[in-house]
Amino acid sequence: MSADLPTDVTRLTQALIRCPSVTPAEGGALTLLENVLTELGFVCHRLTFSEPGTPDIENLYARIGTSGPNLCFAGHTDVVPPGEEDAWSVPPFAGEIRDGILFGRGAVDMKGAIACFVSAAAAYLAQSDTQRRGAISLLITGDEEGPAINGTVKVLDWLKQQGEQIDACIVGEPSNPRRIGDEIKVGRRGSLNGEIIVNGRQGHSAYPALADNPVPKLARIIDRLSVLPLDEGSERFERSNLEVTIISVPNTVTNVIPGQARAAFNVRFNDNWTRERLEDAIRSCCEASAAEVEADMRLTFSFSGDAFCTEPGPLLDTLVAAVRDVSGVTPALTTGGGTSDARFIKNACPVIEFGLVNATIHKVDEHVPVSDLSALTAIYTRFLERFFAAA
Amino acid sequence: MSADLPTDVTRLTQALIRCPSVTPAEGGALTLLENVLTELGFVCHRLTFSEPGTPDIENLYARIGTSGPNLCFAGHTDVVPPGEEDAWSVPPFAGEIRDGILFGRGAVDMKGAIACFVSAAAAYLAQSDTQRRGAISLLITGDEEGPAINGTVKVLDWLKQQGEQIDACIVGEPSNPRRIGDEIKVGRRGSLNGEIIVNGRQGHSAYPALADNPVPKLARIIDRLSVLPLDEGSERFERSNLEVTIISVPNTVTNVIPGQARAAFNVRFNDNWTRERLEDAIRSCCEASAAEVEADMRLTFSFSGDAFCTEPGPLLDTLVAAVRDVSGVTPALTTGGGTSDARFIKNACPVIEFGLVNATIHKVDEHVPVSDLSALTAIYTRFLERFFAAA
Repeated sequence: MSADLPTDVTRLTQALIRCPSVTPAEGGALTLLENVLTELGFVCHRLTFSEPGTPDIENLYARIGTSGPNLCFAGHTDVVPPGEEDAWSVPPFAGEIRDGILFGRGAVDMKGAIACFVSAAAAYLAQSDTQRRGAISLLITGDEEGPAINGTVKVLDWLKQQGEQIDACIVGEPSNPRRIGDEIKVGRRGSLNGEIIVNGRQGHSAYPALADNPVPKLARIIDRLSVLPLDEGSERFERSNLEVTIISVPNTVTNVIPGQARAAFNVRFNDNWTRERLEDAIRSCCEASAAEVEADMRLTFSFSGDAFCTEPGPLLDTLVAAVRDVSGVTPALTTGGGTSDARFIKNACPVIEFGLVNATIHKVDEHVPVSDLSALTAIYTRFLERFFAAA
Repeated sequence: MSADLPTDVTRLTQALIRCPSVTPAEGGALTLLENVLTELGFVCHRLTFSEPGTPDIENLYARIGTSGPNLCFAGHTDVVPPGEEDAWSVPPFAGEIRDGILFGRGAVDMKGAIACFVSAAAAYLAQSDTQRRGAISLLITGDEEGPAINGTVKVLDWLKQQGEQIDACIVGEPSNPRRIGDEIKVGRRGSLNGEIIVNGRQGHSAYPALADNPVPKLARIIDRLSVLPLDEGSERFERSNLEVTIISVPNTVTNVIPGQARAAFNVRFNDNWTRERLEDAIRSCCEASAAEVEADMRLTFSFSGDAFCTEPGPLLDTLVAAVRDVSGVTPALTTGGGTSDARFIKNACPVIEFGLVNATIHKVDEHVPVSDLSALTAIYTRFLERFFAAA
């Protein structure tokens, strides 16, 4: 590796944090990774995708090895904004270490895990150079924290067009609540967004007979929807949950009855539901309460992914064993929390998620202990050894 | 009257409309009135009032005659904005007449009525010059359509400080729904504004246990409040009415549970209520529904005026007789609709409201038939004759 490229996991994490890659900016992060991976012998493809109404996004696919199986590590170099920079103990893009703790936006979500995997791959490649079988690849997007339109979905399409197959995938999202080894995510709840619009007739609050106030009608619908029982959970999933998160009217004056009122909601749902049955249940509830108050209601949905769960198999067994080997901990297999790009990858091959500790993601003073970087690198290295030994 | 001042009601209305006096701008309207009234022999006082946080406002008080009783005409030269000017058939400040209809912002609300009263006063003064008793005054504000802070309230304070008494008042607000003579407003419902804030805890919709969603809680409170029975009306008032007109959250992202949700409402209430009893009833309803859903709720009120009704008496009898004399119509005595500055004047003397037809107020193509200006001028003139004959 050339002298000006970071050679160990801590220096690589620092270097990645110093790239200000707030979605949709590439910020130099993918170029840095491309240079490091090329040096290690990977063949790199920089993929820029466009879509009207969204910013262009850069992505990276890198592979070493020509035979199967192709073990893919998926992740993202884009980060959420730092928020109020003055609130940080250290500048969010400085990559400073204090008392063994590396601070910075992306430290755990998820530049640190990318550095761990690159470092693990380097270690594995160094030790197994002569008898290596299979291929290692990295699918790194710059659009995970954004609309996720020009990112993983389009890279997967591109791979398919190239006839490039991935056989198993680890997503490096921070899966552990407290310490490295706590949890492997084996699935995710589905996510469905909805919008309720109630139309009324604008008017002056002193002449209510000439107007039709949509606000109390919407309130009735939200009230009923918020107590709609969905389910009690399932074998591997928490209970489904609906949250009405936005309410608004196009009105800022107290004595004007608005012509329209709007609400938006998000549902996280488990494998008791298909998209169709869930939409039907929500629509029935909304229509029944709209009928109670004679509301002129419009309900629309936008779907962002079904619930899924990766079945037990060699990929999961190998990662559980690697975690146990290195940390002595048996990880819990969970499906909670938010969505990740695993929801797209699951259509291509078995996918599980394992990375750093998620306690500080998206927060001020996001950080990772340097010892966690070593621990995760060791687990990834052990995983590669076991995976290809069994392949 | 000098040659360059408008001499008849139509020309004076046109000239006033051509002054672009959108609140808080004076626009030349008060200066024009001052010149016309001075020419007629009135003593004029221009009164500019200030208050931190609101624009300075110009007002006019004009009086002719030194003995009592002092009959006051109250009104405003300020107008609401024209809205989209392209939507108007004629420019809103041009004062154009088409087929006997005078168009313009303020045509009926209420530059037209001011012109009618000035014209009526001129006619009355001309005919009764030698045997005239009592005084005629005009209280004209530039802050009726705005916050009403530096307008009529402060003019009334100033009059009190000067020892200047007004004995009876006609407010020239457009009181007639369809034709001149339909209705005299003898009172107004009270108006009370309220704000409900429900505090929760912000969080990600995928982790609802870590958050506390205020939206469904607010929805429950709005739902209960919107069906709270107030009353069935009273002898001279419509039923009281509450409208929740604003709902909002400080959030635009569907997967974020907001930390707070807010609603605002307006109540128009009749003489079944005092401010205190109404606030108590609303607070009880909100607190009971907040308790149902364990909401951390804050409720605040802002009061804009009690319900009032002017008792039958010489002022009202005289105006009813004048309307009958001129139009042959017996006006209905009503208390509906929005508030006006009469809510302030009622503390100084008996006050009633009678003006032009209100069908086009605050709308595009606000207009008045030129024949309505003549009819109202005739009624005001007849009223002055009767009022001072009986005085």
